[in-house]
This record gives sequence, structure tokens and C-alpha cells, in this order.
Amino acid sequence: MPMTPTARLMDGTRLARQILDHSAATARAVTQQTGEAPCLATVLVGDDPASATYVRMKRARCEKAGIASRHLSLPAATTTAELVEAITALSEDPGVHGILLQHPVGAHIDERAAFEAIAPHKDVDGVTMRSFAAMSFGLPGFVSCTPAGIMRLLDHYDVDLAGRHAVVVGRSAILGKPAGMLLLARDATVTYCHSRTRDLKSIVREADVLVAAVGRPRFIRGEDIKTGAVVIDAGYNPGNLGDVDFDAAATRAGLITPVPGGVGPMTIAMLLSQTAEAAALQSGLAPADRLPASSG
Amino acid sequence: MPMTPTARLMDGTRLARQILDHSAATARAVTQQTGEAPCLATVLVGDDPASATYVRMKRARCEKAGIASRHLSLPAATTTAELVEAITALSEDPGVHGILLQHPVGAHIDERAAFEAIAPHKDVDGVTMRSFAAMSFGLPGFVSCTPAGIMRLLDHYDVDLAGRHAVVVGRSAILGKPAGMLLLARDATVTYCHSRTRDLKSIVREADVLVAAVGRPRFIRGEDIKTGAVVIDAGYNPGNLGDVDFDAAATRAGLITPVPGGVGPMTIAMLLSQTAEAAALQSGLAPADRLPASSG
Repeated sequence: MPMTPTARLMDGTRLARQILDHSAATARAVTQQTGEAPCLATVLVGDDPASATYVRMKRARCEKAGIASRHLSLPAATTTAELVEAITALSEDPGVHGILLQHPVGAHIDERAAFEAIAPHKDVDGVTMRSFAAMSFGLPGFVSCTPAGIMRLLDHYDVDLAGRHAVVVGRSAILGKPAGMLLLARDATVTYCHSRTRDLKSIVREADVLVAAVGRPRFIRGEDIKTGAVVIDAGYNPGNLGDVDFDAAATRAGLITPVPGGVGPMTIAMLLSQTAEAAALQSGLAPADRLPASSG
Repeated sequence: MPMTPTARLMDGTRLARQILDHSAATARAVTQQTGEAPCLATVLVGDDPASATYVRMKRARCEKAGIASRHLSLPAATTTAELVEAITALSEDPGVHGILLQHPVGAHIDERAAFEAIAPHKDVDGVTMRSFAAMSFGLPGFVSCTPAGIMRLLDHYDVDLAGRHAVVVGRSAILGKPAGMLLLARDATVTYCHSRTRDLKSIVREADVLVAAVGRPRFIRGEDIKTGAVVIDAGYNPGNLGDVDFDAAATRAGLITPVPGGVGPMTIAMLLSQTAEAAALQSGLAPADRLPASSG
């Protein structure tokens, strides 16, 4: 007999809309004050159709929020040096406030070198080493967009993190690792699990807050969710499936993100929010102590 | 009735000696090749006697290993800008291969800004944001010395980390946080605990590898150590006490570091090792792909 879902949904679509409205207001203020709209530069290497679609979506969303975008499309054969040069030029261009390098860039390119060419104060996608360290140390800086969106969701639903056990399944540089560091900065006890973890189930069962970021459909079984836990599903797999078996998990969790409509919309909202904020900071419209240092 | 200790000791004093011998050999090679010994610049702000002692110890150890040192003692009233300027000059000085800023620097100074003035390729104490991110992402760079020493001890005693549960108690920027990231990079499942953690005991009881880095004497009780666990005590409290109740823990652990003679000697050994390596890298005596990038 199927059990009744008990979990409250964490509505990422709705919260993302609020954030986008706020970003649009910031963008308007910047535009009025400076005569120029905030500008996000998007960089795409090669002709992967999925990547092209993502970039188009992001740019369309920018336009709706009053954020200009400038797109740079580079051929698949672009070298690391050429890409670094192009991004460095954007970093130095005062007309660009934020830079997004669409991942992946092709195996022959040193992606890390390309990311590091993004100036910290324009790193609105939170991909540089400096941004990672800043979020780990609780210093000003931009945050990797998906983990930033997760934290906003947790805050919006008043999830108390201090002293609670947060389990992050996945350890990528742009999702799992920064998510854990942000949860730790908020005084959660944080466990990182991954493909090599033994007895994952028993660790998941201890989680007050679970962040699933593995990219495997229904990898986390509902029966392993602790009663009343907060379940954040950052997975997005073919067939609109998350990393968590939603139906079963929703009969045990206290709060849960749907897929789609949970973490997904938050990621793009945080990109726009950070772009608008970057423009406000660079235009002197926001307090300079929130500006990441550009040196070092 | 007192139980018999079963744990094998992890002899940091002995391993540190081997590392120092190796560092001395590297230093000799650099000196022969370039005509100049590797040089560590030490920077001390104010007149805290304990800090002065630490710096003296480190310089004496350098001398024994054939590493030159240059000491800069600045008055307590030094400003952040003055300290940053002094460290920047050392970063640019080709005669200096490594830079150590002795912690603490005084509350009126922005310590982070001072640390960030250290060039990545001279950050032999592993304190910069870039070094932290590099160790988190598994990229070339220098590692915070105490966590680096802990990893060397684990390797020396053939501790298999993949899939095992490592629990790090403490989350400082130079010890707990990087230790966890290094263990994660080696495929351990990693839990960060700290002062806000609820039910610390039950988490400690799950630890296959325990790193205690809290700075509270005998804070970890022996009865909470899992049978056969590897216990790394990075604490050093008055009365030669570690953070772990050694006598009780040694009746349950499989491997354990004594205090003193465990982690302590490893920290200074790693500083010298990384200084010798920095000089070798900067002199072209070691493969350049191990050199941390200095830009970004």
C-alpha cells in the first residue's frame, strides 16, 4: 500500500522568481545610476547542443531581468592560451560585470586555467579557486550557483542548520565540495559521501539534512531518509528524475525539493542575482566590503 | 583495572627526522646547482614570547638542514598595509624561496590580507586561499603544514583511506578544514565535527580514522574510540597533553600518535620539506608541473 507523502515541498520555482524580481530591481538601479545595464559575458567553446541551449536560456533570463549579455562563441579547436586570453580580456573590460564560462570546454583545454582567468570580482558563477576558498573561510566573494541556491532554499524554509548533521553525497568542485563548506560555515556537522563511501545507507539514515548531488537517477532510496529530514535533490537526470526516489522519500522527509522545480531554477536565479550584485558592487552602489579582493 | 595498550605508536619524531634528512639533501642539491642555499623568510609581528620561540625553533631547524633563513621582525604597531608591503617585497625577491608569517599577528591587522600577499609558489606554510583551494581540488600547490604532516604519517604507516570514515574534530582554516579536504581527496568519507556538533561521541565512535584538532586537553575520551581505529592527535595543550585521552585511547586504537612526538615534529618537518621543494622548483631542479601557478 503506498504511503501518503508527508513532506512539505520546497518550491524552488517560486523562490527563484522572487530572487529574479529582486535582481531585476538591482539591475534597474544600476542602469539608472550609471546609464548602463549590468552585463554578463557568456563564453561557449565548441558546438555542444546542450551547452548552447543552457547559454541561450541564461541569456534569455538575463534579458528578462534587465541584465545585458554579451556572448562569445569560440570554436572547438580553441587552445587553452586562446581561451585564457579571451577571458582575461573580459576580466579587464569595465563594460563586463560578470563572466560565465559554460562547462564543459573540451578535454584538450585546461579548464582550471580558464576558470582562473576570471577576475574574482566578476566570478558570478563562483568557479575560481579564490571563490571556493572565500566561501570555505566565510569571506566575501561569489558562491558557486547551485550551492548558493541550496543555501537560499534552506534559509527560505527556515531550516536550522547549527549542530545538525548535513550529509552531502557527491564531491564535485562546483557542487558537493562547496555545498559542504557552506553548510559547515553555518555550523552544521558535515559528512561528505561519494562513490567510494562504504555503507552509504547507514550514513544517509543519520542525515538531518541531505544534499544529493551524484547525478544518478533515484540513487538515494526513500526508505533510507530519516523521518523529518530535509532533502535537497540537486540531481537532474533524464526523464525528469532526481537523485532521490522522490515518491518514497516524500513519505518520510519533513521538507523536500521536487525535481524539476526545486534546486534547478535556483541555480540560474543565483547566477543573475550575483551578476546584478557584481554590477552594483563595481558601480559603487553596494558596500565595498562585500566586494571580493581582486588581487592575490 | 587498567587495560593494556594495544595500539601501535605512530612515531612522528622518527619520520620527521627522515623528512628532514631528505630536505637537507634537496637543499644541498639546490646549493650545489645554484650557488645559493634555499632561503626561508620568517616574519614576526610584535613581541609575543611564544611566537618568538616558535620562529627561533624553525630557523634553527632550517640551519641544521642547510636552509638559509632571513628574519623580519616588525613592531606590534605595524599596520596591515605595512605588513602587506613587506610580504609583497619578499614575494618578489628572487633570493627568497619560501615565506612564513608567524601567526598570530595582532587583532588590528587583517591577517587574511597579509597571508594573501604571499606568492603561491612561496607559500611553503600553505596558508593562502589559493593553496587551500588547490589542496581541495587536488591541484599542485603547497599544503598547510600540520595537515601535510598528518597525511605523511598516515602514508608512512600504510593506512588505507579509501572508503573509510575519517572524522575531523575541529574546522580551523589551517588545520581542520584542510585536513578534511586532503582526506576526502584520498577517497575517505569525511565528517567535520566542531563545537556546535550534537552527540559528538556517537560520531567519534564511527571513526575509522580520527583527527583531533580542538585544542582542549583530553577532550576525546578513550572509551569513544572504535576498536582498531587510527587516532591522530593534533592537539598540544599545557602539560604535554593532547586532545585525546591517550592512555585510554591506546587500549582501543590500532594506531595512535603520541603527544609529544606525533604530529608536532611533523609540522616543522613539512615546513622545511616544502621550503626545500620550493627552492628546487624555483631553480628548475624539480618538474615545473608541480609548481603552483603564481597568477590568479
